[in-house]
Amino acid sequence: MRMVDIIEKKRDGKALTSDEINFVIQGYTSGDIPDYQVSALLMAVYFQGMTEQERADLTLAMVESGDQIDLSGIEGIKVDKHSTGGVGDTTTLILGPLVAAVDVPVAKMSGRGLGHTGGTIDKLEAVPGFNVELSSEEFTKLVNEIKVAVMGQSGNLTPADKKLYALRDVTATVNSIPLIASSIMSKKIAAGADAIVLDVKTGAGAFMKDEDQARELAHAMVRIGNNVGRQTMAVISDMSQPLGRAIGNALEVQEAIDTLKGEGPKDLTELCLTLGSYMVYLAQKASSLEEARKKLEEAISSGSALERFKDFLAGQGGDASVVDNPSGLPQAAHKIELPASQSGTVSTIVADNVGTAAMWLGAGRATKDSEIDLAVGLMLNKKVGDKVAAGDSLVTIYANDLAQIEKVKEKLLESILISSEAVKAPALIAGHITGE
Amino acid sequence: MRMVDIIEKKRDGKALTSDEINFVIQGYTSGDIPDYQVSALLMAVYFQGMTEQERADLTLAMVESGDQIDLSGIEGIKVDKHSTGGVGDTTTLILGPLVAAVDVPVAKMSGRGLGHTGGTIDKLEAVPGFNVELSSEEFTKLVNEIKVAVMGQSGNLTPADKKLYALRDVTATVNSIPLIASSIMSKKIAAGADAIVLDVKTGAGAFMKDEDQARELAHAMVRIGNNVGRQTMAVISDMSQPLGRAIGNALEVQEAIDTLKGEGPKDLTELCLTLGSYMVYLAQKASSLEEARKKLEEAISSGSALERFKDFLAGQGGDASVVDNPSGLPQAAHKIELPASQSGTVSTIVADNVGTAAMWLGAGRATKDSEIDLAVGLMLNKKVGDKVAAGDSLVTIYANDLAQIEKVKEKLLESILISSEAVKAPALIAGHITGE
Repeated sequence: MRMVDIIEKKRDGKALTSDEINFVIQGYTSGDIPDYQVSALLMAVYFQGMTEQERADLTLAMVESGDQIDLSGIEGIKVDKHSTGGVGDTTTLILGPLVAAVDVPVAKMSGRGLGHTGGTIDKLEAVPGFNVELSSEEFTKLVNEIKVAVMGQSGNLTPADKKLYALRDVTATVNSIPLIASSIMSKKIAAGADAIVLDVKTGAGAFMKDEDQARELAHAMVRIGNNVGRQTMAVISDMSQPLGRAIGNALEVQEAIDTLKGEGPKDLTELCLTLGSYMVYLAQKASSLEEARKKLEEAISSGSALERFKDFLAGQGGDASVVDNPSGLPQAAHKIELPASQSGTVSTIVADNVGTAAMWLGAGRATKDSEIDLAVGLMLNKKVGDKVAAGDSLVTIYANDLAQIEKVKEKLLESILISSEAVKAPALIAGHITGE
Repeated sequence: MRMVDIIEKKRDGKALTSDEINFVIQGYTSGDIPDYQVSALLMAVYFQGMTEQERADLTLAMVESGDQIDLSGIEGIKVDKHSTGGVGDTTTLILGPLVAAVDVPVAKMSGRGLGHTGGTIDKLEAVPGFNVELSSEEFTKLVNEIKVAVMGQSGNLTPADKKLYALRDVTATVNSIPLIASSIMSKKIAAGADAIVLDVKTGAGAFMKDEDQARELAHAMVRIGNNVGRQTMAVISDMSQPLGRAIGNALEVQEAIDTLKGEGPKDLTELCLTLGSYMVYLAQKASSLEEARKKLEEAISSGSALERFKDFLAGQGGDASVVDNPSGLPQAAHKIELPASQSGTVSTIVADNVGTAAMWLGAGRATKDSEIDLAVGLMLNKKVGDKVAAGDSLVTIYANDLAQIEKVKEKLLESILISSEAVKAPALIAGHITGE
């Protein structure tokens, strides 16, 4: 088998065989196939696409390129959830205890990563004592007992995907549905998921700005999942403005607590109930999505979801008293209100810019070595469609270092637009993909 | 300027600016831009093409990537001829003295190269004493006096093209009209041509198997030439069977002598007169193509073309007596006839295979280090459309080493098909591109 023939085949619009895809991924991972041939192939894929079979084969080849997490010691169907990024997304923090409360096992491996705020692990570390350095045995035991645990990702998962992604980033081949879909799915499958729930964001603050593209990506991932024997469902959700109100690590923990109490922002609550019911259904803890949703609503109203959050924190050494006493979470030195300069209706909140402002405060990492300030961030007091009077606080800024505060305020004022005309809040959910 | 943005721009079908093309070619030649970005760009060009302006810019950028031959010491308009390869193509050997006889300067730099037979330099070395190791001053003096000289190529011409070609070869991006056209044109321009005549081969024995593709390539090259200030004309000629009858180094010298005497194969003679009249016209030694052709026909019939060949050989130290006495050329030890196994009409001569058979005899180089046997090769006694009786000789095989002779015979018998039905000889010239 020669790589140049494989490139030519794809260039000419023909489907690659499973053997050919394995040859490429194994050869690239081992270093036998050079970058310059792989980048030509990626560009050919950009133009010619990939069949369903090719996408499934590519996903599995990337899974097999490295370590795979063995979750077989955990009882039940392990359902993993993945969101395609965005700003102020607290769903993972909430969904863990929420679905665990209805007996769905959540074995979450998470990273720290770059971004506007930290990863799930960073956020949880806002709880004093919370420890993510678990052994595999401790992790398995915790999930079996409490149904939810989070640990730092270990092992060399999907090295082919990492290498391919780095190459795509410098060769203008990132934006290809088959490549994005197989990249995401390979990581979930390597992490041991039996079934997968996807939250594909769309709108200005999302990777997929365009709703049709988001829908295409969601379909592509659901098909890959189902084709490789992992039941998969997806929601297409709005990220034209930040989700919920909190953007920041401790602030998002607080928002998660509020939501588990039934007092969270409406959009965030609704998205968690939707994603959660998919997880419960796929874990076979309900026989319909409606039944699954009802169970989750009961877990919130009965307080069992909140109790499960406390058990989860305590199980990993965290101080569960923060749930009832928020002052135990890291507190910022300064709380600054940002008043509206005019009256009207909020028409736009540019999610990316708001996220950048939070990062300037210290809520996220700009580079791998940045230190996160867990206390700082933003609380949005108004969202798109809300009426506002001049002088009302648009945002509460939680800051420790005031050096950049004027720059942050300016960025926020630029990013939150107020219109004199009526504006409707955007629909939260643009689509469901629950079948094939 | 970032390479990834340039790749993305081309990927999205937009035209690159002259600055962007120079950035790519300079950066790639210097090693600042890595292969993996260039191969992604090449694949994007494969799919999106290039505008006329981009093709001209790419050609000039490659010309400027290395040395350029200065032919300004040579009087007159220097017209270079390029053929896109094929089997048994003796046109260069003939055209040099032929157009020199009507006062067109031919300053030919040539290589040795790989192929079924040697390069022009190898063929000329079949003439005892002929020397291609000329200084630049000797070369200029010879062309000014005799109007024709041939020397080995020196200097580092179009290094960008060499590097790009090597990359295209392993990334399935060879077969792109803009890339092929600018590659060929850059080499001709760097070699100092004021005007260019192109012979684009089409048919089974050519690089461009398909006539429409050959026509597109010819048009593309003519436009590049005219856009960068080098008047360019092209012929699209048949290479469905070998051109002429001789395939081999000394054999082709003999065929060139015969053609300059007016006793050459009809197809080869016709193509030389056509290409030659373009050269004469572009060198402004005739005011129309018709007048140019008449001058060439006269040069043949008067014997001045043949005399010019003798002067050319003698000018470079060669033994010109071989022109009248062919036994002075290298002679093969064995002359073997290959009889037809049936009667009928020759319907096909698979040019590539016949070339391969000649290479097996030792007429060409399989690798850079192969030694050429100048004496060996093939003479086709029948061509497509010729009637043949069983037992007639199809080919005369000139061999020194008989070790592979059975394999050669077998290959030739497989490659020369005889039909019981009438077959017409293919048209030699499929098109002329003399204007824009």
